[in-house]
Amino acid sequence: MTLLNRQLCLDSRPQGVPNANNVRLRSAPLRRPGPGQVLLQNLYLSMDPAIRGWMSDKPSYMPPIALGDPVRSSTLGRVVESRHPDFQVGDIVVGLAANGWEDFSLTAGERLDRIEPDPRFPLSHYLSVFSAVGLTPYFGVLDIGKPKPGETMLVSAAAGAVGSLAGQIAKIEGCRTVGLVGSDEKCRWIVEELGYDFAINYKTCRNLTHAIAEACPAGVDIYFDNVGGEVLDAALLNMNNVGRVVFCGAIAQYNTEQPVPGPFNYWQILARSLTVRGFISPEFKDRFGEGIAQMSDWIADGRLVFTEDMVEGLENTLEAFSRLFTGANRGKLMVKVRDPSEPAPTLEEIRNAAEQPAHV
Amino acid sequence: MTLLNRQLCLDSRPQGVPNANNVRLRSAPLRRPGPGQVLLQNLYLSMDPAIRGWMSDKPSYMPPIALGDPVRSSTLGRVVESRHPDFQVGDIVVGLAANGWEDFSLTAGERLDRIEPDPRFPLSHYLSVFSAVGLTPYFGVLDIGKPKPGETMLVSAAAGAVGSLAGQIAKIEGCRTVGLVGSDEKCRWIVEELGYDFAINYKTCRNLTHAIAEACPAGVDIYFDNVGGEVLDAALLNMNNVGRVVFCGAIAQYNTEQPVPGPFNYWQILARSLTVRGFISPEFKDRFGEGIAQMSDWIADGRLVFTEDMVEGLENTLEAFSRLFTGANRGKLMVKVRDPSEPAPTLEEIRNAAEQPAHV
Repeated sequence: MTLLNRQLCLDSRPQGVPNANNVRLRSAPLRRPGPGQVLLQNLYLSMDPAIRGWMSDKPSYMPPIALGDPVRSSTLGRVVESRHPDFQVGDIVVGLAANGWEDFSLTAGERLDRIEPDPRFPLSHYLSVFSAVGLTPYFGVLDIGKPKPGETMLVSAAAGAVGSLAGQIAKIEGCRTVGLVGSDEKCRWIVEELGYDFAINYKTCRNLTHAIAEACPAGVDIYFDNVGGEVLDAALLNMNNVGRVVFCGAIAQYNTEQPVPGPFNYWQILARSLTVRGFISPEFKDRFGEGIAQMSDWIADGRLVFTEDMVEGLENTLEAFSRLFTGANRGKLMVKVRDPSEPAPTLEEIRNAAEQPAHV
Repeated sequence: MTLLNRQLCLDSRPQGVPNANNVRLRSAPLRRPGPGQVLLQNLYLSMDPAIRGWMSDKPSYMPPIALGDPVRSSTLGRVVESRHPDFQVGDIVVGLAANGWEDFSLTAGERLDRIEPDPRFPLSHYLSVFSAVGLTPYFGVLDIGKPKPGETMLVSAAAGAVGSLAGQIAKIEGCRTVGLVGSDEKCRWIVEELGYDFAINYKTCRNLTHAIAEACPAGVDIYFDNVGGEVLDAALLNMNNVGRVVFCGAIAQYNTEQPVPGPFNYWQILARSLTVRGFISPEFKDRFGEGIAQMSDWIADGRLVFTEDMVEGLENTLEAFSRLFTGANRGKLMVKVRDPSEPAPTLEEIRNAAEQPAHV
């Protein structure tokens, strides 16, 4: 048996949505861990809009992916060989943006978190609702948005993985919630299934500023922003005094290579005494346990609905990723690389297949 | 004797810096107070960039000045007739944006604050450092910027009325301070007289982003922004993680009628987990007494240097105002309408000169 590592590597920086010219599938011999390293077999990949940013060479909170490298990604995997004292073969681990779009990832132990799966939930939840995609709305709503009962929270990309949770968390805190989505079907879904109080199809409404004003007669206290752009401009014109803008993403601009201006209504931040706060979930890393425990309870109680949009097969990753930008996904988009019930390669198989260990 | 009220009225909305076609001097008969109103003789006018915003019909935190009305302005005056129980003839009062560019203002008592002048300071200080222009940097630095000793604060328009105080207050709090100004002379002034650690002439430096990086080797923790525009973009690229942008003004855009985009580096707010907080001083109205007491002590101790740039004569107001936008002023620009040592009109003179009282 030849054990090869299939890898989706960044060949060129994309213009717009990445395609097969930018990301190519290669097969490489397996590499074995050096001191302090861990070899994982990836089970699930997380499809995150942020990955599109790392494919560019724009400055951001992480360095760009180097050309030729596997596309950087958060993954959930199982340990198949370890040279780090904290990890043993069979451990289930997640690496938040420490791994890649590949069958096997070779990673420093410090960049992995071992998880103790709760049998009430599918394993994939530890790469979705119990990981960045869930902890981002958890801390974004509670710690950045600081909701008070009776306040109104507006959410963009409200049918997305983060937005669908943000609205439900604000609702649990006693807010009125209004979601912006891109289709009538999503409007129905977020109201009927997720409990949003109201939904606006931003693609078909005539004037988004007026539509938000009608949907939020008491104004907007918290705007949970996943998209930026014109939607942000419309939201700013509806903010109440001392309102909060939770700046979580700006997907509207991820596929442009031109410089993108900030909101034309930036002045309203002063005029309305607003707070705009950007954040990424690692800021709250010390409190991830708290967030996972609380959301586990909410899901078990049926108060929080969470949907995974699961695509099968590493070879379908690029097509799956592109759906993030066409509005074709609903809930958290993920790729299953290998089913957890399938057997892991044994150490002997790895030994036979692999190159010599890296000397780090 | 004929007692006329000279008024500078908004005839048309300016394009760019307002000129004599936009603001015209008229004389009107004196009007006497109706119930609850107070008639003031204005002594000093405050020249504030915000007034330029109110001359436009763009939405902001105050309605636009109506065409034909005197230009809205903060003033300090003395009461010459009162029909409000809290005010007596001879009282010294300030009206924050409640009055106008005129000899006499007729104002509801609720919109005035009576002051108890401290004889250690000139009366005009109660319309400058002990008013919005001083309370804005006081609360902006302390409550919005939240400086910690050893942090770096960058200030734009650092030789302006607000910026010159902001740097000194941050310095008192133990920060390293770097100021952005528009001339070498101002560079010298803010370092030698105001105690800024470093000054950058943004007009002559080759690359502002690099110049800030060199002047702030440990990065920028607090950016106190008075100007917006390209300077804000350069500042954003130098912010430290979880830094604070105190959004106090955007003078770079006040004279444009075109829609002005927000910063092109808006994304950095997310990438660096920044907080951008807009504010105007009335948010802290309940704590103005605290701010005035603290700044009085600092001025009396010589720890805070404050300069008034005083222009004589109501008729020179428009020319004085335009200097706010050419960078020709240094310190707080004000107009002295009448010297406090000159006699006030008597009630009999007012009665003889005036129209009948308004019946409110």
